Parts: sequence; structure tokens; C-alpha cells
Amino acid sequence: MAAGPLKTQIDNAALRFTPHVRQTPVLTTRLPGLDRDISLKFEQMQYTGSFKVRGAFNSLTSQAVPPAGVVAASGGNHGAAVGYAARALGHKAHVFVPEAAGPAKIALIRETGAELTVLPGVYADVIDAAAAEADRTGAIQIHAYDAPATVAGQGTLAREWDLQGLDADTILVAVGGGGLIGGFLGWFGTTRKIVAVEPELCATLHNARRHGPEHETAASGLGVNALGAKRIGRICHGMAEQFDTPCLLVPDDAIAEAQTLLWRGLRQLVEPAGATALAPLLCGAYVPEPDERVAVLICGGNIAPDPLAG
Amino acid sequence: MAAGPLKTQIDNAALRFTPHVRQTPVLTTRLPGLDRDISLKFEQMQYTGSFKVRGAFNSLTSQAVPPAGVVAASGGNHGAAVGYAARALGHKAHVFVPEAAGPAKIALIRETGAELTVLPGVYADVIDAAAAEADRTGAIQIHAYDAPATVAGQGTLAREWDLQGLDADTILVAVGGGGLIGGFLGWFGTTRKIVAVEPELCATLHNARRHGPEHETAASGLGVNALGAKRIGRICHGMAEQFDTPCLLVPDDAIAEAQTLLWRGLRQLVEPAGATALAPLLCGAYVPEPDERVAVLICGGNIAPDPLAG
Repeated sequence: MAAGPLKTQIDNAALRFTPHVRQTPVLTTRLPGLDRDISLKFEQMQYTGSFKVRGAFNSLTSQAVPPAGVVAASGGNHGAAVGYAARALGHKAHVFVPEAAGPAKIALIRETGAELTVLPGVYADVIDAAAAEADRTGAIQIHAYDAPATVAGQGTLAREWDLQGLDADTILVAVGGGGLIGGFLGWFGTTRKIVAVEPELCATLHNARRHGPEHETAASGLGVNALGAKRIGRICHGMAEQFDTPCLLVPDDAIAEAQTLLWRGLRQLVEPAGATALAPLLCGAYVPEPDERVAVLICGGNIAPDPLAG
Repeated sequence: MAAGPLKTQIDNAALRFTPHVRQTPVLTTRLPGLDRDISLKFEQMQYTGSFKVRGAFNSLTSQAVPPAGVVAASGGNHGAAVGYAARALGHKAHVFVPEAAGPAKIALIRETGAELTVLPGVYADVIDAAAAEADRTGAIQIHAYDAPATVAGQGTLAREWDLQGLDADTILVAVGGGGLIGGFLGWFGTTRKIVAVEPELCATLHNARRHGPEHETAASGLGVNALGAKRIGRICHGMAEQFDTPCLLVPDDAIAEAQTLLWRGLRQLVEPAGATALAPLLCGAYVPEPDERVAVLICGGNIAPDPLAG
């Protein structure tokens, strides 16, 4: 997919659903231990605690939704987003999540009023069940990362940051299935250096770049319920090949360190996936040039356990 | 103190120490259960997790600091702020806190490198010890809320929000000793409706308005280490009388509900004092007019226990 048409789709998405999403805050600041100011965008402050509502709203506002509503398979955040967007727009939603989503995210989905089916295993294990349910009922499916409407919706985050005056040469973005970074590549093309960041234990894009897009990755570790896709999305993979996107791996201890730094330095408590894009600056996986202006997207905040639960 | 001169002092403070503080993010959004959008400013993202660094930097940059450095008595946040500002400017600092500050805030002060004395009791119990130490060593004292330089420093928060385009008729501000709301009254005067919010169990300004500024209040409850002054500051009291500032009381359960709403609705985890200004909108202590545009200041995030500790 070329950057041009997707960029237009992102513009259209933003015009279509802007009233339904928050324009999340940005801040350029120095964090303890870093050698320069970093530009941050706090997308964990989005409705349902992650960027996923953008793709969900775009998917539901860019096509006809049948009375049977929508079905989604999700590691947690996408399901909450689909449930939230469906309720806001008056549609039925049925979300399939694995037990690995954890109680905090499962509760979040339940609160949206969506019908909820929890199955053993991880994200890959619920995909078939969601597809079968859609076939049975006539509901539409909303893919978590590999559908054009999903990618264009997530791209509104890149567009919004750009219009907020983002002053950066390089943007670090966490990658699971590739919907989010697909939106960034679609919006920015080669006008900024977009860097993919994956946990070593969820190296889906990294492996696909080496072994081809059909390669399957067994995901695990801290970020697994948000970043643990078995296979990278084809839309993301195509653009990452086209733009030769740098793809970094970070160990789980660097992700945990990034979570700690965001809390200690900014009082932002986020889930491992939400802190992953900061980790390369802490562990040396990414060393910026002396005058390079760096931005880091904080993409999700649904930490487990819920710090106010119980 | 008239609003005019203080407003000039606030301008001067901002020009003096701007590089040392963050311009914290703002957001106007709908929170679940509220009937209108609310404008928020996230000052808990400030260095050391509260607005207190503004007053500390202004106090240290507007006067000569002797080799003996500075001494501060604090419920926790002010001490962390003085320690942080002193280190940034190359001064010695000695902070006196009560045990009621709690381990998270005590650790925060220790991390600044300040000398630390922890005494039994609450804020009021450490004031004399801090004064004696200043007399003994020749250090200057930085009052937590009732000194012109402190109030002018906190006022830079009001100025900054104003310059960020704050679109509100009414601003709800939590009150402990009155340094923060003093800065808001000094900056805005009567151009906005500034509303003081206190926990029922820390009703210092409320009691002073009824019984006079010498009245002493026994503070307790959720917000005590941040809002538990025994007596309201004279600077704040004078302006609250002059402007007839509305003064609301909220129960601790409304404060806890506000903390929960900020986490569930915005993924912002803040201390009770930081959520106090939101509480009147939840418990009915403040019911805005139908077309009234309301702003709420989130002023501190140093929740206990530290959610990432242990």
C-alpha cells in the first residue's frame, strides 16, 4: 500500500470520528537519566486507555453495520475499544479474548456492555472463534491491526501529533501486529524516521523482516497481551519493507525500567506495551545522534493489576 | 495583598525560573458520569509530582541563598520540591517532615539529596524544629505556603494555564495552607470564579472564614499530609476575604471517588489531594450552571503506597 492513499484515508478518518476521540496531550521534557529532551504523547489517556478506539471508530463509521453488530478478537485493548465504540454508536458487540488478557482488561471490556467470551490461551487462540461467530450471526469483524480501516484509524494519532506541532526527527513506536505503526508510516511516509520497537519476546515484525511475512512467532513476556501477535499484519509488513523501517528489540527488563521511569519521572503509570517505545533509549538499543530530536509514543495504560482494585 | 502587585510578581517569577519547570499538559474532555466537558491541567506531571517546585524555585531565585542553604518544614510535597530545586541550583537543603508524610514522600525527599529529619506527628509538629535549625545554621527558610515568593511561584501555574488558552468561567482548586489558591487569586483576581475546595477533615480555610484567621484546625483524613495545615496562610486568607472566594467542603469518600474516576476515565493515578478539586462535581458540593465552563486543577500525584514499590 502506498503512503499517498492511506494518508488520504487517515484525513477522512479524522474528519469522520473526531468528536468521538480525545486529542491526547503532548509534552516535551527531560526525564531523569536521559541526555536530551524527549517529545511524548500520552495516548494512554485516550478513551479505554489505548489508541485502539481510533481504529474501532473508523471501522464502524466507514461501513454499514448490520443488526448483528460487530465481532472482535482481541488481546484486551482492541476488545475494549470495539465495545466502547459500538456502544457509543448504538451497535451490538461481541468480543473474544484469551485468558491472557488478564482480569483488568477483561473487566474493562465487560464495562463497555459488550458480550464477552473468554477462552483459554493467547490472542491467536481466539481468532477462529471470533470468525466463526461472525459467520454464524452475520456480524462484521473488526480486525485488531490488519484491516485498512483499522490502520487508517490508528493513523489519526500520527496526524494529530503532527498537527500538534511535533518537533522531532525520529518517532519510536511499539509494535504488536502493526496497526499502529502502519498508521504512522501511512501518515509520515519518509518525512520522519519511524522506528519500530518490539519486546524480544514478541518479535513478530523483526522475524517477518528476516523470514518473510508468513513467519509465525511464539510470543510471551511482559507485553504479550498487547503486543503478542502470532504474525505481523500484511499492511504493516508491506510498508516496513517499502520504507526499510528500523526494527529494534528490547528485553523485558528495559520495558519494566521504562515503566518505572514514566512513573517516577512523570507520574504516568502505564502497561508494559505503553512503555515499550521508551525502552530503547534506556538499554542502548537506540542511540540517537547528538542533535537528533526524538519522540516516544506512550500508547496504552491498562496496567495489571488495576492499582485501585480491591 | 492586592491582586495587582502579586500579578506582577507572578510574571517576574515565571520569567525567572521557567527553564526549571515543566509546562504541564492540559486537556478538555468528558469524564464518565459528568454532564459536561471539564478542562483539566495535569500538574502532577510536574517535577517531583506536584506544583510545589514552582514556589521553591521562585523562593530560591528571588533572594540570596547563604552557604548554609535552605530549611523547609513540609508535609512531604513541599520538602521534595525544596530538595529538588536546591539541588538544581547548587544549594544545601535540610527538610523536616512528620512521619505522616508516609514512606513514598519521604523516599522522594531522600532522592533529592536533601538532608532529612523525620519527626513524629503531622506538619504542624515539624515547623518549630525547622525554624530552630534555620536559626542555628543561618540557613533561610522557605515557607510551604505563606510567603510572598511561594505564593507568586505557585501563581505561575495559573499564569501558564491562562496562556495555554484556558477556556473556563470557573476554576476549582484544592486548598491546604493556601499557597496554590493564593497564586490563582493573585493571577486571575475576579476575572474568573476561583473556588476553594477542602476536605471536610482539613477545613482550614473554611474555618478561618467563619472564625477568623487565627483559628486552628485539627486536620485528618485522606489528604492530611498534603492539605493538613493547622492554620490558613495570611496571604491566602486576605485574598479570600477580599474576593469572597467560595469555599467548599468535600467528604473523603468523594475524594476517593474522584481518584477512581481519574484512573478509570483518564489513566491518571493521583494522590487524594490531587483529586480533591474534582470531588465537588461528583458529590454535588458544586453544581455548575447549565452553560458554565468548569476547570479542575489536578495538583499532585504522589500516591501512597508507590504503585511500583516492592
